[in-house]
Amino acid sequence: MVTLHDFLPSGNGYKCRLLLRFLGAPFTLKEYDILKGETRTPEFLDRLNANGRIPVLELEDGRCLSESGAILNYLGAGTPFLPDDDWTRAKVLQWMFFEQYTLEPSVAVRRFWLTEQTEPLSEIQQAQLPAKLDQGHAALGVLERGLAAGPWLVGDGPTIADIALYGYTHVAPEGGYDLDAYPNVTGWIGRFREIPGYVPITRRDFA
Amino acid sequence: MVTLHDFLPSGNGYKCRLLLRFLGAPFTLKEYDILKGETRTPEFLDRLNANGRIPVLELEDGRCLSESGAILNYLGAGTPFLPDDDWTRAKVLQWMFFEQYTLEPSVAVRRFWLTEQTEPLSEIQQAQLPAKLDQGHAALGVLERGLAAGPWLVGDGPTIADIALYGYTHVAPEGGYDLDAYPNVTGWIGRFREIPGYVPITRRDFA
Repeated sequence: MVTLHDFLPSGNGYKCRLLLRFLGAPFTLKEYDILKGETRTPEFLDRLNANGRIPVLELEDGRCLSESGAILNYLGAGTPFLPDDDWTRAKVLQWMFFEQYTLEPSVAVRRFWLTEQTEPLSEIQQAQLPAKLDQGHAALGVLERGLAAGPWLVGDGPTIADIALYGYTHVAPEGGYDLDAYPNVTGWIGRFREIPGYVPITRRDFA
Repeated sequence: MVTLHDFLPSGNGYKCRLLLRFLGAPFTLKEYDILKGETRTPEFLDRLNANGRIPVLELEDGRCLSESGAILNYLGAGTPFLPDDDWTRAKVLQWMFFEQYTLEPSVAVRRFWLTEQTEPLSEIQQAQLPAKLDQGHAALGVLERGLAAGPWLVGDGPTIADIALYGYTHVAPEGGYDLDAYPNVTGWIGRFREIPGYVPITRRDFA
């Protein structure tokens, strides 16, 4: 059985938990508190991820894989969540890189600063809030446009691209983003929650 | 023949150009000046990439793919630059997502601010420079550690992971990062330049 090293409020960890649940795959969940530096210990850095971040997927033989996008592709291969066609896989990756590079650094970072961070915001963080709000809305606009053509981002059914984008988009209001202006996005969030196996982001009964 | 929509100083565009050269694949290069908003025109947003960024790969039939990581995976499939083995592909993606999420936002952004941006740095940008220097060195440290085990990031030969990491790492000094403290990285940069087909980042004779 695989082990998922995780922090429950993390949208990146949540994406991996969601796919495991959708696939009905058993897994052991090991929790870390990133706010207490539990992913920066020498043991974590040496054995699990030199970059000091969750999620990390550990296979039974001890091999470790980090980066939620890589984990989703690895677990999704051979399942309906990652159709085995070169163009489809490429479009799935397009959305996943867009999410990590453009949507996450605005939408997820504002949420983290405003709801997770325990110390007060620094002056530099405060100063970045307006620009991150604008950047996040621009990213949400791209997502809205991407969902105009069909119910899911790529192809006829939900893929790991939808999982990757859902992770932080559905909690964007926690970062101060009003989603009312994005009807395609809110409709898609509703459909996503109907996928069998769905669980909300911080429920503890995953494994 | 495919068309690469690109901006020559971009490390993300460069990654795609490099792979096309390594593969000996002919392509048409179409240049845009991102500093003049040429990727934010209605035509670019409608037809090429709603996110308003290069690189974009356009196939002969007009289909378009954005995000350098997706383009590298699409073009690399079936070639020695992307071995067809689930675990290897996953480790390649791990490095590529690490690059876009952790290394690029520090190392590449400082380079852009210090060498490409035409207007003076804003106060917020100035204030972020020290933290981005630290974050970039942390990322370079992860790369240094990743190159301790062998000559290339994944497996026995260069893959699209090496291309993705090389893109901005080799020009990190332009962002104020001294690479002397990273002997594995500098050795790998030297090896990378020996790959047949190699071209430097802003040469115009790609196509």
